[in-house]
Formats: sequence, structure tokens, C-alpha cells
Amino acid sequence: MEKTTVSLLETIITLLENKKYAALRDILTTMNPVDIAAVFEDIQSEKTALLFRLLPKELAAETFVEMDEDTQKLLIHGFSDTELKEVIDELYVDDAVDIIEEMPANVVKRILRQADPVTRKQINEILKYPEDSTGSIMTTEFVILRPKMTVEEAIKRIRRTGIDKETINTCYVADNQSKLIGIVTIRSLILSEEDELIENIMETNVISVNTLDDQEYAAQVLNKYNFLDLPVVDKENRLVGIVTVDDAIDVIEEEATEDIQKMAAITPNTDKPYNKIGVFETYKNRIPWLLILMVSATFTGMIISSFESALAASVALTAFIPMLMDTGGNSGSQASVTIIRSLSLGEIEFKDIFKVIFKESRVSLLCGVTLAAANFVKMMVVDRMLMHNDQITVTVALVVCLTLIVTIFFAKIVGCTLPMLAKKIGFDPAVMASPFITTIVDAISLFVYFEIATMVLKI
Amino acid sequence: MEKTTVSLLETIITLLENKKYAALRDILTTMNPVDIAAVFEDIQSEKTALLFRLLPKELAAETFVEMDEDTQKLLIHGFSDTELKEVIDELYVDDAVDIIEEMPANVVKRILRQADPVTRKQINEILKYPEDSTGSIMTTEFVILRPKMTVEEAIKRIRRTGIDKETINTCYVADNQSKLIGIVTIRSLILSEEDELIENIMETNVISVNTLDDQEYAAQVLNKYNFLDLPVVDKENRLVGIVTVDDAIDVIEEEATEDIQKMAAITPNTDKPYNKIGVFETYKNRIPWLLILMVSATFTGMIISSFESALAASVALTAFIPMLMDTGGNSGSQASVTIIRSLSLGEIEFKDIFKVIFKESRVSLLCGVTLAAANFVKMMVVDRMLMHNDQITVTVALVVCLTLIVTIFFAKIVGCTLPMLAKKIGFDPAVMASPFITTIVDAISLFVYFEIATMVLKI
Repeated sequence: MEKTTVSLLETIITLLENKKYAALRDILTTMNPVDIAAVFEDIQSEKTALLFRLLPKELAAETFVEMDEDTQKLLIHGFSDTELKEVIDELYVDDAVDIIEEMPANVVKRILRQADPVTRKQINEILKYPEDSTGSIMTTEFVILRPKMTVEEAIKRIRRTGIDKETINTCYVADNQSKLIGIVTIRSLILSEEDELIENIMETNVISVNTLDDQEYAAQVLNKYNFLDLPVVDKENRLVGIVTVDDAIDVIEEEATEDIQKMAAITPNTDKPYNKIGVFETYKNRIPWLLILMVSATFTGMIISSFESALAASVALTAFIPMLMDTGGNSGSQASVTIIRSLSLGEIEFKDIFKVIFKESRVSLLCGVTLAAANFVKMMVVDRMLMHNDQITVTVALVVCLTLIVTIFFAKIVGCTLPMLAKKIGFDPAVMASPFITTIVDAISLFVYFEIATMVLKI
Repeated sequence: MEKTTVSLLETIITLLENKKYAALRDILTTMNPVDIAAVFEDIQSEKTALLFRLLPKELAAETFVEMDEDTQKLLIHGFSDTELKEVIDELYVDDAVDIIEEMPANVVKRILRQADPVTRKQINEILKYPEDSTGSIMTTEFVILRPKMTVEEAIKRIRRTGIDKETINTCYVADNQSKLIGIVTIRSLILSEEDELIENIMETNVISVNTLDDQEYAAQVLNKYNFLDLPVVDKENRLVGIVTVDDAIDVIEEEATEDIQKMAAITPNTDKPYNKIGVFETYKNRIPWLLILMVSATFTGMIISSFESALAASVALTAFIPMLMDTGGNSGSQASVTIIRSLSLGEIEFKDIFKVIFKESRVSLLCGVTLAAANFVKMMVVDRMLMHNDQITVTVALVVCLTLIVTIFFAKIVGCTLPMLAKKIGFDPAVMASPFITTIVDAISLFVYFEIATMVLKI
């Protein structure tokens, strides 16, 4: 598949260079808009407008939606007002909004001026919703039916108006006050008798979301019930839009990326793919957490300093610091990452905290004992017998192993508790992931290590 | 929303205890199967069969699909053969397969015995595909049209056969050899004239996937083109099934969870939610990587041991080990996690490796210099002036800061290179995430630290 795409791209570029526009147009019209948009990213920018003008009107608009921001800007810049109007009129309203949100203010003004009054009103309507709200990702184009219509009348209405609507798979039944009272799928329309009334075949137990709900919530509801679209209502339960499944998938992917970035101590940035984010922006997304975590590691250093005499007395102890810190950190992030993901998939809630702690403490004891045993054998066989390191006595091995068990216990408890507490007080649990937990667990493990060493080795 | 669900659950439990079955049935029939299934998880297990029998046949099957494995097992165990047959006959084939895959062999036999011959054949067909292949998540129920049919004939055919099909939003046009030649959406059927031929309105540039393609690939294609379903063909390009968008969303969520788990050094387990996985299973998923990483930390310990004399000469150096290790680890995982996610979203490929390395090295220098500067100020002002630690000389501060810059550079390069190499040689890049990289970066940072210290401090 990859291979064909590459050679097709080469063909297109050759045709473009040799000015074989008729052949080029014939090829492009057989392609999917997503793939045509990808072609635009690989050709020279001065050919962009030329290639775009080869596309038939509707296909041009569909391709425009799929392009990256830079190509869109380039095209809009070169468009005459008539061309701009043609593209905007062909766009679905929610796609137009997506594009507008990425454009500089002067381009936005130009786009809005070219849109017809109805579209302009709809665009402005959606633009007023806060970022990340359901209102901001919904479309205002959908089919509305009335309860007293017959199936035949409904199908006639869809035929008359449906060609402009983003999805007609689900039609919405509303009363005279625009209150949502039911939904009818195109499937049930097709499968019903023509003289049946809509109110008799509509589903009245409608699940909807509010314009101000978080977009992630809307995506989760849609996913939970396996819907293809989901009605969006305002505070008065009036139907104002729908969220379609393709937008929901994008939200789900974005949220997963955002969680992953937060877990790795990166300020989330999901608007652009990796290769579109500049060096300085990447730097800005990464440096704050690195600074915060570096400064907090100071405490770990202070713990080491305060046990300086113990370390001087038994230099062998220093060699196990990295292993103890890493194992503690890994154990803690296993717990925290598991809990963060379960929270974000809605598998557990704050009320489960004691069940979670009980489970993690049992898991931590199993892990701790296993690792301690493995480590004891390794220290005795490898370090002492094979490498003849006389400083590694049974007592030193016991100190290290005991520290392992205690550290892993605390690591797992901190790892599962912090994300749940964060969620409870309204913070994002993902921020409580590996790096943050590692810093805390580092301090705990070193403190435990030196305390046990001082007690057991009497230094 | 959460609140209403809880009180509705309480009402249902009260009605169940007071044996108000008629009222209970009335409430349940207004609910969505997903929500009814959730009720089953909260009632006593001896009431399960009773509550299930209150549901009308079709709703019962729809609810059954949404239940967790344990409740399904409990119900199947208590079913008479007739009851089992009724449920199985109502299920869509792909849902039946999902359930069968989770059941013990004797239950599978019983289910297959009760299914009608056509369903049994279809189930066996899907069961033979490898786990995680597209074939294993497809459904074999879809509407097939012929190119020479008129729109009117097509709609009649859908009405006659469509009631059993999982989705009729897209109909597939195949020739006499079952070769896929086009698709027609229900939308275009509704919007076309009744005497139009299917071959004139069908989309012939069909994008399809193969039965043996990875399910993640199918989900990505479906998402890329914003499809609601995607045709699945065999090696001879014969249409054998379709993947629907709801299954694709599940795949996308599962894959994200799997990546997150691997990044946190956990053996992936996405079949069950957190609270359904036992303590021992959780232990088994976590212990292998903890062991491997613990053993590899030995090398870090060996580096410390070999610089024992340097450490003894300047004890202050030890206090900065945790900070250097943590900052190196964090820098490395920022790069690795970003690259892993970009690889899995298809934003970058192996051929971009030099671009990536060039970008990461510039980012790393910016980060390194910033952190080194902050650290120098902190060491001079806090450690030396405020805390009167005389061991912290300007030279020691320079050693630490220089180490920071070099470590961060190596951390970012290792962090971005390893996942891309892993992908190239066919390994899962996610395994090359934080914990693995941390171990490597730990060793690098300590080695660099002691080398610089030995050189500069002449110890």
C-alpha cells in the first residue's frame, strides 16, 4: 500500500512538471481527498495553487479540509474572493470552524466576509463556545423531523435538505420549541412502512450532552453507547448541534496523546504533529517540568549529604543508590500510570481508593519479596563470590534487600494514591505520573536506605 | 448525570427486593442496554437470572453483549438450552465471537451447539483469524448489492435483508465472483432517483483492508478517511467482512492503553479493567520488567564502585548523583515518549531519523544550557551562600553543570534513536520508553560525571 502511494506521488509530480493537466485531473478525481491533501505536502509551494485549481469544486473543498494549516494558509492567501467563497460554501460548518480556529485574524475576517449569511451565523455560533467544550466540536448541520410526519414525508424531507447535512444516519425529532424529543435512524426509516408516523418509530429515550460539557465527556458517551452521532442540547434542552463519531475519535486520540505527554513531564501540545513543531516550541513544552523536577531533586541530595558519615564509613553502600532509586521509581510509575489510565477510562473512581490501596499493597509485597530475593542471590553470588568484593557482607545484602521491600511498598502506595487525590481535588491525574512520583520515591528510598543502614550496620 | 444513575440504581434494587417485577420491567425497557448491563454488576448474583428474564428478548441480547465476562458466564451457566439459543440467535455475529473468545471450552461448545447452522459457520469463520488481525474483529453481516440493480430494487433488498445486518449505512457492491467493485452509502441511495442504476451512483475507488492486516492498521485507515465502516477482503480481493467504527474506537483505545502500559514497564493487559484483574495477575504483569531493570542497574552500581576513590576524595559529589540521574532520565523519556507516540500515530517514519536527531540535539542544547545555568545559580546562592556548604566550590558547580549539558544531550539522542531503531527492526517502540532509557541514561550520566570530575578536579 505504502509502495503504490509513493510511486503514484512520483507520477503526479512528473505530470505536474510536464504540464499534463488533463491526465493529472483524471488521476486526482479517482483519489480520496485525504490522499490528495497528502500530495500537496510533497509538491513545491509555487505549484500548490495550480494543482488545487485542477480539482472539481466539491473535491477541492473536501481536499482543502484535509490539508495542513500551512498549505491552507498558502492557498487562502492566493485565492481570489470568488474562489474563497466557493470553497467556504462547500465546507461543512464544523470543518470551516476548525480551519478558522487555526488562521490569523485578518484571514478569519476575509473568510467570514465571503461566507453566506447563514453559514457566517452558524460559524460565529460555534466559535463562541470555549475550547475543549462539546459546543466547539459539534456541527450545526443535521436533519430535524417532526413527530407527526409519516415515514414517506420524512424521507422526502431528507431528500430535499439532506444533501447539505454532514450526516443523515440519525435524524432528530424535535417539537415546536426545538426541544429534542426523539431520534430516528435512517435504518429504521428504510425498514418501516411508508405511512407509519415518526412518533411511533422514534427512540424516545435519548442520550444527549450539553454544549458546555467537556469534549472528552461527549466522546466517552458516544463510545460507551456505540453511537455514530450524539445530540448536543443547551441549558433549556433545545437541540443545537450534533457530535459525529469521526470528531469523537479525534478527541479520544488527542486525549490519549495529552495523557502520555503529561506522564512524561511534557506540557501537552496536541494541535500539531511532531514534525510541525519547531525547536523552540518543543523546548518550551519540555523545560518547565525539567526545571521543577531538577529543583525538587535537591531534597534527595540533602538526604545524601546528611548521611555523609554513614556513606564514608561504608563506601559499598553508594553503589546501590542507583539501583534502589530506579527500582523504586519504576515500581511507583507502574502503579501511577495504571491508575491514571483507569481513571481516564472511567474504570475506577475516587470512592475505590481503599480497595486500590489494599490491592496495590499486596502487589507491592509480592514484587518486593521477589526482587529482594533475586537481589540477595545476585549480591551473594555475583558481587561477593565471583567478583570477590569483600565489602558485600550478608549484613549489607540484608540492608539493601530490606530497603527494596520497604521502598517498593511506599512507591506503589504513593503511586496509586497521588493520582486519585489529584483527581479528587480537580487536578489532572496525569501530571502525577512517573517523573513527579519518581522524585518523591527517590527521597523516600534514600531515607529508608540510610535509616536501615544506620540501624543495622550501627554506623 | 452520575447522580441520576445512582438513584435509578437504588430504585431498581428496591423494586427487585420488593418483587415489583412489572414496574421493574417498565423501567428497564426505557433504558439503554449499556446502562442495564451496568445494573447487573451491582446486584446480588442470585438475582441475576431473575432480572435478565424480565427483559424482552431483543433487549436481553443487546444487554448481554454489554455485560462483563463474569456475569455472562453466570447467566450462560443458568440458561436452559432454549434460552441460550434465543440469546445467541439475537446476537450479531461479531458480538457472539467476542463473547465466545472469553469463555471456557465447554461453554463454547454449548454455545456453538445452540447456534443455527449459518451463524455457527460464520462464527467459526471469524474464530480462525489470528488474534489482533482485522479478520478477528470484522463482522460478516453486511448488505451486498449488484451493479445492475436500480436504487428501488436496492432499497427493497435492504428492507428484506437489512434488519439482521449490523450496519446498513454503507452497502457493498460485488460482482458474481464476490469481488468488491464499489460502495454505496444509504445516504446516496436516499438522495438518488429510484430508477438510477447502482453502478452509476456507486463509489468505485474503494479503500479496503486485508483479513490478515493488523487490527490497529484497519482502525487507523478507518480513522484517517473518517469512514463509518471499512470493507475487509481476502487475498483474492473477495469481500469477506466489514469493520465497523465502534470496534475501531475500541482498538484505538486499547492500543493507547497498551502503549502507556509498555512505557511504564508493564506487560500489557487490556482485556480487563483494573478492578477485574487479580493481585497475582497484576504482579505477573509487573515483575518481569522490574527484575530486568533491577539487574541492569547493576552496571550503574559498577560505575560508581570503579570511581570509589574519586567519591571518597570529594564527598560532595555524591549528593548530586540523584539530581543528575533524574534529570537525565526525565530528558530522555520526554524525547522517547514523544517519538513513540508520533510513530504510533504515523506522524514520523524511520526515514525521518536524521531530521529527528538534528531537532532533538538542538532542543537538548537549549534545555541543557537553561538547566545548567539554573543549577549554577542554585549551587552558588543556596548551597554555598545560604547553607554555608564550603565543599561546593565554583569548580564543583562547573563539573555538575557541564555534566548536566552532556547528559541531557546524550539522553535526548538515545531517547529519540532507540524507539526508531526498534521500529525499524520490527520491535515495538513502546518498550523502548522511559524505564529502559532511564537505565541507559543513568549509566551514561554517571560515567560522564566521574570522567569530568576526575579531569577537572584532578582526583
